[in-house]
This record gives sequence, C-alpha cells and structure tokens, in this order.
Amino acid sequence: MATERLVVVGGDAAGMSAASQARRLKGPEQMEIVVFERSPFTSYSACGIPYWVGGVVGSAEELIARTPQEHRERGIDLRLRTEVTRLDVARRRVQAQDLVSGTKTWTRYDRLVIATGARPVRPPLPGIDARGIHGVQSLEDGRSLLDTLETTAGRRAVVVGAGYIGVEMAEALKLRGFEVTVLHQGEQPMATLDPDMGGLVHSAMSRMGIAVIGGAAATGFATTQGGRVRSVTTRESEYPADVVVLGMGVEPRTGLARAAGLPLGAAGGLLTDRSMRVRGHQDIWAGGDCVEVLELVSGRERHIPLGTHANKHGQVIGANVGGGYATFPGVVGTAVSKVCDLEIARTGLREKDARASGLQFVTATVESTNTAGYYPGAATMTVKMLAERRTGRLLGVQIVGAEGAAKRVDIAAVALTAGMTVEQMVALDLGYAPPFSPVWDPVLVAARKAVTAVRAAGV
Amino acid sequence: MATERLVVVGGDAAGMSAASQARRLKGPEQMEIVVFERSPFTSYSACGIPYWVGGVVGSAEELIARTPQEHRERGIDLRLRTEVTRLDVARRRVQAQDLVSGTKTWTRYDRLVIATGARPVRPPLPGIDARGIHGVQSLEDGRSLLDTLETTAGRRAVVVGAGYIGVEMAEALKLRGFEVTVLHQGEQPMATLDPDMGGLVHSAMSRMGIAVIGGAAATGFATTQGGRVRSVTTRESEYPADVVVLGMGVEPRTGLARAAGLPLGAAGGLLTDRSMRVRGHQDIWAGGDCVEVLELVSGRERHIPLGTHANKHGQVIGANVGGGYATFPGVVGTAVSKVCDLEIARTGLREKDARASGLQFVTATVESTNTAGYYPGAATMTVKMLAERRTGRLLGVQIVGAEGAAKRVDIAAVALTAGMTVEQMVALDLGYAPPFSPVWDPVLVAARKAVTAVRAAGV
Repeated sequence: MATERLVVVGGDAAGMSAASQARRLKGPEQMEIVVFERSPFTSYSACGIPYWVGGVVGSAEELIARTPQEHRERGIDLRLRTEVTRLDVARRRVQAQDLVSGTKTWTRYDRLVIATGARPVRPPLPGIDARGIHGVQSLEDGRSLLDTLETTAGRRAVVVGAGYIGVEMAEALKLRGFEVTVLHQGEQPMATLDPDMGGLVHSAMSRMGIAVIGGAAATGFATTQGGRVRSVTTRESEYPADVVVLGMGVEPRTGLARAAGLPLGAAGGLLTDRSMRVRGHQDIWAGGDCVEVLELVSGRERHIPLGTHANKHGQVIGANVGGGYATFPGVVGTAVSKVCDLEIARTGLREKDARASGLQFVTATVESTNTAGYYPGAATMTVKMLAERRTGRLLGVQIVGAEGAAKRVDIAAVALTAGMTVEQMVALDLGYAPPFSPVWDPVLVAARKAVTAVRAAGV
Repeated sequence: MATERLVVVGGDAAGMSAASQARRLKGPEQMEIVVFERSPFTSYSACGIPYWVGGVVGSAEELIARTPQEHRERGIDLRLRTEVTRLDVARRRVQAQDLVSGTKTWTRYDRLVIATGARPVRPPLPGIDARGIHGVQSLEDGRSLLDTLETTAGRRAVVVGAGYIGVEMAEALKLRGFEVTVLHQGEQPMATLDPDMGGLVHSAMSRMGIAVIGGAAATGFATTQGGRVRSVTTRESEYPADVVVLGMGVEPRTGLARAAGLPLGAAGGLLTDRSMRVRGHQDIWAGGDCVEVLELVSGRERHIPLGTHANKHGQVIGANVGGGYATFPGVVGTAVSKVCDLEIARTGLREKDARASGLQFVTATVESTNTAGYYPGAATMTVKMLAERRTGRLLGVQIVGAEGAAKRVDIAAVALTAGMTVEQMVALDLGYAPPFSPVWDPVLVAARKAVTAVRAAGV
C-alpha cells in the first residue's frame, strides 16, 4: 500500500491533537505524519501562562501536556523551530525554514492541516518595543516576563487590555506583589460581557485593590534613557509603569493561508465546513485559533480562540484525515475566567450580539447565593439571562460572582445547544443540596424572572 | 365576587410555596387561604438539619426560610400545631385537630392542596424507641438529637442507613467528635449509585475514619437498664452505640389520601397529572414528598422526595389554583450530596434502572481532574456514564470525587432533559479555564469513552 503524507502546520493544541488522532487511526506504514512548529515547544497550555507568571503553577514544564519526545515515540515526525513560510496549494507542498540553520526546504503533502493559531494584537504604538513591555502568548513570553518581574525594583505594573488575559494577568501581577493598573478602551472591563455585568467585575477588582481605568486607549509608551518602559500614555493621562503586560486580544494567524488564496472570514480566520475541511479544498483541513467557528445561537461565523475548541477541532480533523468521520457542530460562545476570588462566565449572546443578529429579547438579572443561604460562607453571584421575545428561547447567560459562578454557566451552555426556552429551564432538575446550591439554583431563579419578562413583553 | 377557599394540608416547602404563589395571583378578597400544619414550623429546610447537627449551621432558626408571621402578613391563615385527621372529598371538607386543645373541626374547601410530605421509615424493631435513637426528619428531631449529643459521655455513634441522610449524618457526627459507624443492608453505601460508584464512596469514607459496614441490616437495639440505647444488633454482630441515628429512607405520608380513596402509585405516593392535579379530582392538587413524579428517562413514576422538587411543585400548584397555568414536566433523577470533602452526584438511570426499563446500554467510566492537571490542588473525580445501545442516547451519569464533582452533574441533567446522545455531548461548549476544568471537561471525557463503547457494541 502506498504511504500518504500528512503535513501539519503548527504543533500546539489543534495541530498535535489532529496528528495524534490521525496516528491512532493510521499506522506509520499507511501514513507519514510531519508536523512543523516554529517554537521549541508542543502541546502546551497557553491558558496556564497567567498562573505560572503568578506563581500559582511552579514551572513552565508543568504546562506541557505532551513533550516532543512523546509525540515522536508515537511515530510523528515533529520538526521544531521550523517555520512554514509558504503554502503551495496547486502543487500540494509547503516550504519550511529551519530557524536555526536558515535552510528552506519544500515538503509535498497528500493531506494538509493548518493549525497556525493566533497572534497577539500589537499595535505599532511609539515605544511598544521597549524593554519591560511583554506579551503573554507563548512560553518564551512568560519566561521573559518573569525575568522582568524578578529583576525590576519598581512595583508598578500596568496591564493594557481588560479581557480574559488582562484580568488574569492583573491577578498574577498582584500575586507577585505589584501595584496593578488595568487600562482598557471600553466602558467596562470584560467586553465579552454586557457593560452592566462588566461593571460588577470593575467593582470587584477595585475592591481587590486593582485600579481599572476605562476609556483609556494606550497611545504610546514613554521610556527611560536606557530604553526601558517608564509609563503608558493615553490621550488624557500617563500611567507610571515598571512593567507593562499587553492583553489586547489576538487575531488569527492566517498570513500564509491568505497568500495561498484560502478562504477567510470577516475576522480573518479560515473558513471550514462541518468536517473542519477548508471550504473548497478537498485535502486541506484547519482548526484551532486560526479558524472561525459557527456560533450556533446567532448562526454566524466568529473568531473564538480557545484551547478547548482547538482540542476538539484537532480530534475531528484527525478522525477525518485518518479515514474516519467526525464533525464539529459549532459553539455557543462559552467562556469562563477568574480574577482572584471573582468568577466570570458567559455563554451565548450579549445584548449587542442579539441586536446585531436581528433578535429581539428581554433580559432578567438576579442575585442569588451559591449555596443555601444559611450554609457557612454562602456568597452571592449575579446571573443575567437573555431570552428571545415571543418564543422565550434562551439566547445567553452571563454570571459574575463567588465560587461556583463560573461552571454554572455550563447549564446554560447545554440549554443553548438544545435550543431550550427559559420556561423549559425553570423545570430543569439540577442538583440541590445545601453545600452546593440554594433550593432554587441561581440559574433557575434567573430563568423564572426571564419567563415573567417574556410574558410581560407580549407577542 | 364570591370568595373561594383554598385549603392546604401541610405547611412546608410544597404547601407554603403553593399558598404563597396562589396569594400572589389572587388577593384575600378573591381567595381565602387556610394552611394546616402539624408542627410549630413552616418553610424550613429539612435538608439543612445534618449541617445544623454537625455545627456547620449555628441554629435551627437559620433553616427557616420564612416564618409563620411572614406568611400571615401575606394574608395566609396559617394554623400551626393543627393536624388534618380526615379528608372528606365527597363533601369537600377536611377535619383538623388542634394538637394543643384536642378540638376537632371541619373546614370546607373549594380547592384543596395536599402537601403532607414524607415519613421516615421506622421499622418496629425491638428497642427502636429507646432513648438515644433519633430520626432527623424535623427540627424537633434535630433538637432532640443535639440534646443527646451534648449530654452523652460516650463517643460512639452508629448511623443506620447509608443513603443521603446516612452519609450526611456520618459527617455531622464526625464533626461533633464521635466515632462513627454506618450500617447498611446493601453491597455498598449510596444505593442511589451503582455499586461500583458506591464502592468509591465506601473507600473514601473509610479513609476519613468512618466505618462503613455493608450487608448489615439492623435487627434490633440493646438498651441499658435505664432505657438508653447501648448497641445496634444485626444478624451477625453487635455494634456498641452511645447514640443512634436512623437514616432508613422515607415513604410518602399518604394515609389520609389513601383513606379518602385518592389514587396512589406503586411507591405509595399520590398520582397527579402534569398540572399537579390529583388524577380524577378536579379540585385537588398534590405536591412535594407525598407524590410520585414522572421520571423522564425511564418514563415511569417514582417517589423522589427532594426539597427542590417540592418547591417547584408548589409554584406550579399555586399558579394553577390561583387561576393561572403551569405544568411540572417531570424529573431526571438528579441528586447531589457530600460527606466531608467527597462530593457525590447522580442523574438519570443506574444500570439496574435501565435494565428494569427494558433499555440496553453501555457504560463508560473515567477518572479525571477537576481543574487543569497542573493547577494547584487539582484532585480527581470519577465519572460513570450510561448510554443506550444503538442510539447512543444518554441514560445516566454518576460522579464521585473532589470539589466540583457534584454540580458537574447538572451538565448531564440538562443533556438528559434534552434527550442528547453521548456523541452530541462530546461537542458541548463547556466552560474551560485552568482553575475550573481540564481542557476536556471530565463529563466530556466520559462522553468520548461512551461514544467508543456505543460503536463497539454495534447495532
């Protein structure tokens, strides 16, 4: 039997999951698997970097799920520090450069997987390349930031951006003993939430002693004569900084794909079909942070870079390139995070997403305890629910609060997937015992209020 | 307008929820609401009693959600210490006895709600009425048990029964400094789980220093000359005891309903329709621990006495008797509990339930961490999943393990309600961040394994 060659571009979550799954289905005599990875690492948890920086996790090694050696032992030809520099779709080949020697070579493929991930947004602001300004995308970034934290005498840290990375890094820097200021452009931090819920995050962070400044777009960075960052400037102010962390979001890393003429969506991510095959290309698959995914509630494609999706994509791709069959049905937009003791969760649509999707809706916001009210340590969470007008279909849930807030959003994630109405949710048979929930779970309390709002809104 | 009279028999969760909800919909000029309650209390959390006994909750008052005075201020004619002794359905009236004066009086109703709750199983074993032997059904029971714990010099406690109450009381007694032995009849504790999962509970309790003895049905109680309990006897052995707690389950308290000729199910609970109306009786509703509920996975009626169901029943009944419309669709059998740090959860069918329902199935059991493996304090949970052969429909989930185990069962509860297959579950968009979950949530890991098992079982 002829051996076919699978080439995988990018050796993190999606790429290595795809390679591993394909290898499970096809042995080395049937399929050669070559993976090109720019960095010296594979299969690490980028989501874990804030916890490593914060000292919660002891070392970078702990973030590595599977070492290059383990992958090679499974018969995967893994080429680290090797960057793919061109895709030649017509001739089914990729050009890769050995970043150590500089040598470029072409490799033919029968099947190709693109898993090039995402790139942190890094606007060309004056001074952005000064020492002491750090991204936190890769293990190298984390190491470099830790070096700065350990060698800097000053204790003032500024985080630019108040999304997941921003708030997690605010916690990490606080744990390292820094005074932390978070600057962000919007009305409230956590723009993945509605502003009213983001406001709760703002208040909680303020109580933790983290300064959160909204409407503050960074315009540049002032530096010392030695070329170190000294402050972050905005149009109206200047924030002294001994260290700066950039958490300004990421964008799909699809330059190669664009140059090769592969189809990209509005957010710049690769567009795939349900089997994660690049649209119009029989032998090319793509997954992870470089693709757009179908968001099931609005029915639109969105760029939602999350490790959990990347792993699922990899499994689906691996099954398909390995001769099996699997599909990825889409996402509902679930994400959870925390800053110190505050848990933050969302799924489905925010108010502005619903509007942009042509959906009319009602909202219900409730505050409830995470355990029976009399149980010691009972603390509150706020649950906001969006339901479609007329049908009462659940559109989205946001939860901010104490322990137990984050993973409660899973209830809504499953309900969204199933297309439930808020009325159906009221009757959900959720786990109840005093240490775990009030007799009406906070999500059910919100659903009850949403039912009333749907009725009040009429048809 | 003529005032109609609603009579409610039983003033705990279901009864008072029904009364309160009816009052919201109809004012005192439209509907008189009379509630008869045997005890001096209303609306208290019986589920909280183990935590009060364990000293986790400071006082019985904290367990009372709403006081009699609060109910009365809302226009509910609440008659405490008054026991309904007869239902006269033909003449639409109830006979009630004032337990203080002994006086019996008849009260006519237009609409009747039966919420008589459940009664602890208390077999007529020799010595069962000895001092030092306690149930934990009511606040009076809790007070009496606490008195015994405070005045007993000995430190040996025996719990008879290893269901939810049994394991929770084991924890409570341990917290009070007792040496605890739990006796139960079955192969493993927690018979609401399959024996393999119950075995995990057994091992964990043993590691906590709680002796758990299976196959040990109590046959009687030896007493001191003073009439205090001295030991629990079984067919094969004798267990010294300074205090005994009975946790042998409960049965629907439906003697009145039976005498009145109302329809009862196989477990002795009242049978209702979807609106919680007693079958065949236009003006009588029933809810809470005295009814059987439709269990949606097997399609059978079962007696599942839980406060969370009782509250929902009360809401539904109150809406209907108040002139609105609401239904209770049924349950999927979700229950959660804990013993010390061990969390225990179940939903849907056990293996034996599936067999009894004519369902063929596969099982998948996995062990996974509750957070990212590298996150400090990561601890394990075991997830067992049952899926129907051929269709792959989810049938049940059981989870035993560390923090985060219990409420994860909600994911499965919603999936069961929606009739999802395990294949659909693999793609669920659940919350992921290192402090809350590994990148594949434990429930998804189990679903992946279940998919493989379904395929392997063929058609």
